[in-house]
Amino acid sequence: MPKNVTQKLIASHLLKGAMCEAEEIAIKIDQTLTQDATGTMVMLELEAMGLERAKTEVSVQYVDHNLLQTDFKNADDHLFLQSACRRFGIWYSRPGNGVSHPVHMEHFGRPGRTLLGSDSHSCAAGSMGMLAIGAGGLEVAMAIAGEPFYVKMPRIVGVRLTGSLPDWVSAKDIILEMLRRYDVSGGVDKVFEYYGDGLQGLNAMDRHVIANMGAELGATTSVFPSDVVLREFLASRGREEAWVELVADEGATYDEEIEIDLASLVPMIACPSSPGNVVPVSEVAGRPVRQCVVGSSANPGLRDFAIVAMMLEQHGVHEDVSLDINPTSRQILENLSALGYLGTLIHRGARIHQAGCGGCIGMGEAPATESISLRTMPRNFPGRSGTKEDKVYLCSPETAAASAITGVITDPRTLDFAYPHFKEPEHYILNTEALAPPAEDGRLVALIKGPNIASLPEFDPLPDALSGPVLIKTGDNVSTDEIMPAGAKVLPLRSNIPEIAKFTFYQIDEGYYDRAMQQQGGTSFIVGGENYGQGSSREHAALAPRYLGVRAVLAKSFARIHWQNLCNFGIVPLSFEKEADYDAIRSGDRLRLPDLNEEIRRGDRVTVINTTQEATFTMRNAMTPRQVQMVLEGSIIKMCRSCRQS
Amino acid sequence: MPKNVTQKLIASHLLKGAMCEAEEIAIKIDQTLTQDATGTMVMLELEAMGLERAKTEVSVQYVDHNLLQTDFKNADDHLFLQSACRRFGIWYSRPGNGVSHPVHMEHFGRPGRTLLGSDSHSCAAGSMGMLAIGAGGLEVAMAIAGEPFYVKMPRIVGVRLTGSLPDWVSAKDIILEMLRRYDVSGGVDKVFEYYGDGLQGLNAMDRHVIANMGAELGATTSVFPSDVVLREFLASRGREEAWVELVADEGATYDEEIEIDLASLVPMIACPSSPGNVVPVSEVAGRPVRQCVVGSSANPGLRDFAIVAMMLEQHGVHEDVSLDINPTSRQILENLSALGYLGTLIHRGARIHQAGCGGCIGMGEAPATESISLRTMPRNFPGRSGTKEDKVYLCSPETAAASAITGVITDPRTLDFAYPHFKEPEHYILNTEALAPPAEDGRLVALIKGPNIASLPEFDPLPDALSGPVLIKTGDNVSTDEIMPAGAKVLPLRSNIPEIAKFTFYQIDEGYYDRAMQQQGGTSFIVGGENYGQGSSREHAALAPRYLGVRAVLAKSFARIHWQNLCNFGIVPLSFEKEADYDAIRSGDRLRLPDLNEEIRRGDRVTVINTTQEATFTMRNAMTPRQVQMVLEGSIIKMCRSCRQS
Repeated sequence: MPKNVTQKLIASHLLKGAMCEAEEIAIKIDQTLTQDATGTMVMLELEAMGLERAKTEVSVQYVDHNLLQTDFKNADDHLFLQSACRRFGIWYSRPGNGVSHPVHMEHFGRPGRTLLGSDSHSCAAGSMGMLAIGAGGLEVAMAIAGEPFYVKMPRIVGVRLTGSLPDWVSAKDIILEMLRRYDVSGGVDKVFEYYGDGLQGLNAMDRHVIANMGAELGATTSVFPSDVVLREFLASRGREEAWVELVADEGATYDEEIEIDLASLVPMIACPSSPGNVVPVSEVAGRPVRQCVVGSSANPGLRDFAIVAMMLEQHGVHEDVSLDINPTSRQILENLSALGYLGTLIHRGARIHQAGCGGCIGMGEAPATESISLRTMPRNFPGRSGTKEDKVYLCSPETAAASAITGVITDPRTLDFAYPHFKEPEHYILNTEALAPPAEDGRLVALIKGPNIASLPEFDPLPDALSGPVLIKTGDNVSTDEIMPAGAKVLPLRSNIPEIAKFTFYQIDEGYYDRAMQQQGGTSFIVGGENYGQGSSREHAALAPRYLGVRAVLAKSFARIHWQNLCNFGIVPLSFEKEADYDAIRSGDRLRLPDLNEEIRRGDRVTVINTTQEATFTMRNAMTPRQVQMVLEGSIIKMCRSCRQS
Repeated sequence: MPKNVTQKLIASHLLKGAMCEAEEIAIKIDQTLTQDATGTMVMLELEAMGLERAKTEVSVQYVDHNLLQTDFKNADDHLFLQSACRRFGIWYSRPGNGVSHPVHMEHFGRPGRTLLGSDSHSCAAGSMGMLAIGAGGLEVAMAIAGEPFYVKMPRIVGVRLTGSLPDWVSAKDIILEMLRRYDVSGGVDKVFEYYGDGLQGLNAMDRHVIANMGAELGATTSVFPSDVVLREFLASRGREEAWVELVADEGATYDEEIEIDLASLVPMIACPSSPGNVVPVSEVAGRPVRQCVVGSSANPGLRDFAIVAMMLEQHGVHEDVSLDINPTSRQILENLSALGYLGTLIHRGARIHQAGCGGCIGMGEAPATESISLRTMPRNFPGRSGTKEDKVYLCSPETAAASAITGVITDPRTLDFAYPHFKEPEHYILNTEALAPPAEDGRLVALIKGPNIASLPEFDPLPDALSGPVLIKTGDNVSTDEIMPAGAKVLPLRSNIPEIAKFTFYQIDEGYYDRAMQQQGGTSFIVGGENYGQGSSREHAALAPRYLGVRAVLAKSFARIHWQNLCNFGIVPLSFEKEADYDAIRSGDRLRLPDLNEEIRRGDRVTVINTTQEATFTMRNAMTPRQVQMVLEGSIIKMCRSCRQS
């Protein structure tokens, strides 16, 4: 039977289960990627597992999030990660070498392979014919240790791209069009596989833009074929030998098919404060802008910066606008410098930041109070910029540069100069000096642990019954940024659960932590709406609530990675069967789940008694048997320990 | 009578007083410079004065300190400063345009003129034949309003430079040699005037290095002649018309003379944690290094970065070292890029930061706990790096780069390649797009005040007598970093006295703020050692203690700028007459100054009763009549208001 690319990738890595939609499958992981904000926890987990050496083909630890170094914590983390990489046989990409996803693509990604990354945008490597999935840190730790990755067999959506993009419209507008169609949860449990003649005009980094923000659709991942365009990409980086062809078989089909006519697209923009809030730029044109930020893994290519420089050759930056450039990697920065584009950007007043995530993860570049910031980044959840009262819009580099020139949101098609077409260089200057290969034998390397690096708390098994108060009830699409913020204040605490727990739900409910502490370790519940836990893969959004006593989250639906993170750390995810049950429940109500332990062992219904309202209803348990086992034991770590002992 | 350069500069600007050592003189100020960390307060002061338009020839507001933007505060400050510049007729150097001192030198400085800057390193402009002095913000505000600047007529020390520097030794080693000779208070009330044939080998930016760190000697300022070397500097920046010759008259003399034979110098380094703790690099060679930082106003020139790039062409960076590059200005960064040096730095793994002060003021780049950081910066006071347990060494770019290559502190003369001689380009690419000229008429411009910008507190007049406890007793050379830290946590609060006051003495005594608050607004005292308040010009080191009830500081001696800041905000500075009186006093003792008000009006003796120890002694009041008046009225602001009303 003819296969599409996704099916080929899964079939060649399938260890358990059948490739039937929604069934749990286990797949072999060839490569892993960790970044510093999640990686310190991964390394502590590897230490706890007693791992000798990484069992993957390639594992790489990046340092791209925590680069601000406002005190000892970041720098201590860097030393810890470096020592852990030497210890466990992992590549170490040094601080400032760049954002994990584009660096991985340029130096390590290989078509036909699988990648698991402890960063939700790890799916970006789907741009190069890989099956690349974002997951919680603990699952990546398991993969490094050679364990398979478990995931629901996704529904495969074929996205046929036809025609070619008009001037001033680029890859970002394609994924924004997808977000306009599907919103932030329309991709849940799906893989988007792109194909069609429209692909020819999209280079590998353009495809990265689209695959990267597949995360914002809630998709399991996105997949592109490995074709001649990818071969050129690899060749230009001196890695042609990594190329293999991987395209859909003649006659392959998809579970669902859609089409985008690239020629019909216009510049698009996601308005505050959701990546799914997409409209044509022309609809919001004219609003005054104070900041434009170009960069991040959602527009990482040389092209994305060069086009801004080429536009600035025509016109300077408006005096009321701060134009911030976040180079995605040291290699791209070096090539920009060699080609003269960096000189133009500097000359025209752009602020050149260190290569890394920067403002994308709220590490600096916070906009002024209530002022508009245009960003080429993937997310604009409330407060993620670092400014609580922010107004962040997401757009293409063309739209960001046009707006930086005029001082107001501007459809770049309305500028008074011609579109400057960029031509990719045939060969890139390669920059590998900040990539340290794994040591030959790291067994004797000691881990360097600064004072901010704390061990994981203990996780006790699930009791027979639960009772306690609902400490918060949220609306739909609450992101992990709202459950556990990133940013300059909180990110440096990622290696320290008791400290970071103080910021749980801080963005939307400053009193949450105090109410949780008043429970003195007793059980409590969270009630959420649709797509609860969308966004980043941070396991701290599960770890911290668990530390504060949460043992079940009741929501209309869950984002994939967060769902697994909840299970990993022994929190039961339950789905409302009736909208009315969600509506009736109030923050402060006391709930009782009288037979939870037994019910989740037995089937898919869980009884909930709202003792405050004297009402009883049932919720759906959609955990797999494996997930049930981990919540019963208290966490996946305990479960694995039990496996080994048995 | 033949005059030296300093005498010529003072004589041509003298408004009051006689040029006799130690006498108070008033001089006309031609130019002012403010940076963002002190400038927001200056702008609030201009607003309080009701100023219509700056009365100086040129006033420039720089944004170089608060660039991290971890939340709304920095960005709000930038908008406020931009609006204030438009309002008051001040040039605005936008965020990321670079560090005030080198940018001012390249675009605004003129030989023969006076400059007052609300940054202690404003003396750097002495490198171009200016009389350039650092002062508290309030004095700069007064200068912008056309008022003269009052200062003690300094002792003029002639520093004769002979010969030329050996390979691997550069300007930083000259000023480190001065610090080895004079330590951090040997320059108090002195001007160092450099002359001699050794000057020919030092370009204007090399002279900047020396003049800049004159601040660390405690000097009033440093002065270089305006000669052919300066003409070349100005010509290479398209500003030859600004040049006038200004050299010492034949037969001019100095109050004191010293000599440095440049040929005899070796690479020097200031060990933790004082710029005066200088030894030859060879004495500490071999200690493992984790970080090397190049940049800041103490090594701002193109040469300082180019030499590092040229060294890295020979050898890469050691894998255990983070090499951080802080470009001093967008113009220098652009030229580095055009000449290919930036490409080399990036290629070899350097982390390129935004142009600005960065780690020099503790805004990022904090080193790991107890690890060694080598910096080309001017200061290494404890904790200034952002890491409390830091080990910061100060050195030349050559020593920093050599150590980055080897991974241990390294005398660059021991490297196995030849010294790469750098040749200055004849013409620089000019970069002025981020410099906004003052508006024609700003009277109608509204100030944009974000929620973190608070008005100044009120200052009540000095009571007849004072009594209260000594809340802290410090040792010698306590810097303003220890009185009021900078860094990522505290700097953003510079526009908000009640908030920033919480960090008073935080570096050396975490309980100080709580003890002060327990006084409930009552009077308290500080006891200090020699050179109390050395370092930066931040007036918050006086404003915050005053806000917390401090009405007198009793010290062995005071740093010049801090002394004036104390007077400006109504705190009486008193000097111990006997070492034994300082020794006897203890933190917690209650003091009574029974007749302070009358005694400072009358003369130079103030009676102090230590009621706890039942001892009485006298202290010296060295305030000028004008300073006495301001402390009596409660602050210089009140004094000026009284002047205008009378």
